[in-house]
Amino acid sequence: MADTRYDVATIGNAIVDIISRADDKFLQNQGLAKGAMTLIDADRASALYREAGPAIEASGGSAANTAAGVASLGGRAAFIGKVADDQFGGLFRHDIRAAGVAFDTPQAVDGPPTARSLIFVTPDAQRTMQTYLGACLSLTPADVKPETIKQSKVVYLEGYLWDPPQAKEAFLQAARIAHGAGRKVALTLSDSFCVERHRASFRDLVENHIDILIANEMEICSLWQVQSFDAALQATRGKCEVAALTRSEKGAVIFADGELHVVDAARVDKVVDTTGAGDLFAAGFLYGYAVGCSLFDAGRIGAIAAAEVISHIGPRPQVRLADLLPADLRSPARQVARS
Amino acid sequence: MADTRYDVATIGNAIVDIISRADDKFLQNQGLAKGAMTLIDADRASALYREAGPAIEASGGSAANTAAGVASLGGRAAFIGKVADDQFGGLFRHDIRAAGVAFDTPQAVDGPPTARSLIFVTPDAQRTMQTYLGACLSLTPADVKPETIKQSKVVYLEGYLWDPPQAKEAFLQAARIAHGAGRKVALTLSDSFCVERHRASFRDLVENHIDILIANEMEICSLWQVQSFDAALQATRGKCEVAALTRSEKGAVIFADGELHVVDAARVDKVVDTTGAGDLFAAGFLYGYAVGCSLFDAGRIGAIAAAEVISHIGPRPQVRLADLLPADLRSPARQVARS
Repeated sequence: MADTRYDVATIGNAIVDIISRADDKFLQNQGLAKGAMTLIDADRASALYREAGPAIEASGGSAANTAAGVASLGGRAAFIGKVADDQFGGLFRHDIRAAGVAFDTPQAVDGPPTARSLIFVTPDAQRTMQTYLGACLSLTPADVKPETIKQSKVVYLEGYLWDPPQAKEAFLQAARIAHGAGRKVALTLSDSFCVERHRASFRDLVENHIDILIANEMEICSLWQVQSFDAALQATRGKCEVAALTRSEKGAVIFADGELHVVDAARVDKVVDTTGAGDLFAAGFLYGYAVGCSLFDAGRIGAIAAAEVISHIGPRPQVRLADLLPADLRSPARQVARS
Repeated sequence: MADTRYDVATIGNAIVDIISRADDKFLQNQGLAKGAMTLIDADRASALYREAGPAIEASGGSAANTAAGVASLGGRAAFIGKVADDQFGGLFRHDIRAAGVAFDTPQAVDGPPTARSLIFVTPDAQRTMQTYLGACLSLTPADVKPETIKQSKVVYLEGYLWDPPQAKEAFLQAARIAHGAGRKVALTLSDSFCVERHRASFRDLVENHIDILIANEMEICSLWQVQSFDAALQATRGKCEVAALTRSEKGAVIFADGELHVVDAARVDKVVDTTGAGDLFAAGFLYGYAVGCSLFDAGRIGAIAAAEVISHIGPRPQVRLADLLPADLRSPARQVARS
């Protein structure tokens, strides 16, 4: 089995989050779909920002948050995504590298500015996201460096990448290169509205192109157009090698051929902002998987990483996640790691 | 007594904070003066940012934080300060307006970018600030609209404004206009290193040009070059109409002609980040003063506002400060307000 340079390489939209607090009435008045990620254009982004309260800015982007989480756990991570040559692009690049993630996608030299997501956090800690994709629209297959993909145990793609038309090609190319090198390809369904937009494509991906599926309850129910979690679980079995289905405070269900595990959610004193919960579960799960943990232990690491990120404002860990792992999950033996 | 439009107008450097966590070793390796605000140039700012950990961005600037605090308490606030026409300038403008503060200083159309301060928060919650002034250097007396000053009960100036050469003139002009209209002029000494740089000027200001002085223990000791708080207190008495001297967890001492008050610090469960503590004390004190509270009650409001801001990352309130006031401090009677 060939040596690898990265445990996990992730590909996704490179986004700066603009996080403010809002109440349900604000969401209603603005016609926002609570809990969802909705795409907006530049004009709508400006108009909505004008109505938003004081905010803080933090680097985000689903797959980028996952890469930061892998690095925070002590894993070797890379990220591929597109920012513009502007101040927000500069801070995105700084933050991902400062988190210990390899990031060398060339910035867009002209065209729209770095993507931003207006994230409204309601008092119930739920987040509602309005995303202007900006420079993410210029990610192309040329940005996917084959060497990065070939040298990563797992390549992780976010479903959101199905939104920018050219990124889709980058996504498929990465999957081809990974499989050609004998690597695993993982996918998150990202968001139930995203599944609505791309259901047929996502079904094809799950059944024919990916090895590991990560999805939450709403997303997996939407994928198969079923009403219950159990129905979604039955529909998913046999479709891909490994699936990790998350259910917020109810924990996660993980299965592979002949295996089924139920992982409890990790304890959180106070849920402050659910932004990044799924991204960090994926980080923990994929890190554990890549370094050779059992699927159950990989799920436990995911639960611990998710619990940290929902305990504060912002979509990336604020402490070293490796320090939060119980003794039996620390320093998993790399020698038994999956290739 | 003429009607006023604002309780407090503040003038200061318009800055975006880039906040990251660091340990004492990092401060030592980088040669940073812990707890201080140090001015740096663009090259040093870039070099230092490269070494910093993942960050979050939030609008800051001492006097701007104070204006945001006044508005959060229910007061009428205005801010004067200079940003550039760039993304950081846009977020500064958004945040101060979204906080309910009037802000219409024209942005700099060319020249350096919006100011930023690299703020390193150590595990002891202390903050160390490295500031690149950028567009703040282009604040001039023309930016001080006489109408804003004339219609504000209190005009508040930050000592940091003595650093950009032209801003100093804006500062003095604002003080002249305010006094011409019978308004009060308040000053914060800002930082003990800032006092070192401008001691003679600050002494002249305190003795001849301002009515209300706000300073912390280190700053007031530096101003008079004395070693003890009591010596600084004695040196200050009689020099200006009102002084509020803050002492972190030891509370504050407030005095005016014939009056002396000691105000305890408000309770904080856990001090997370001391950035903004002095700014928010000033917000509470000046708000209380402007709406006609006793000096003691104004100090209590200052202590409550400071306690909120040090309980989280970031230099501005994250809740409506008016909601934190005990019943006897709410809705102070505007009819007895000072002119």
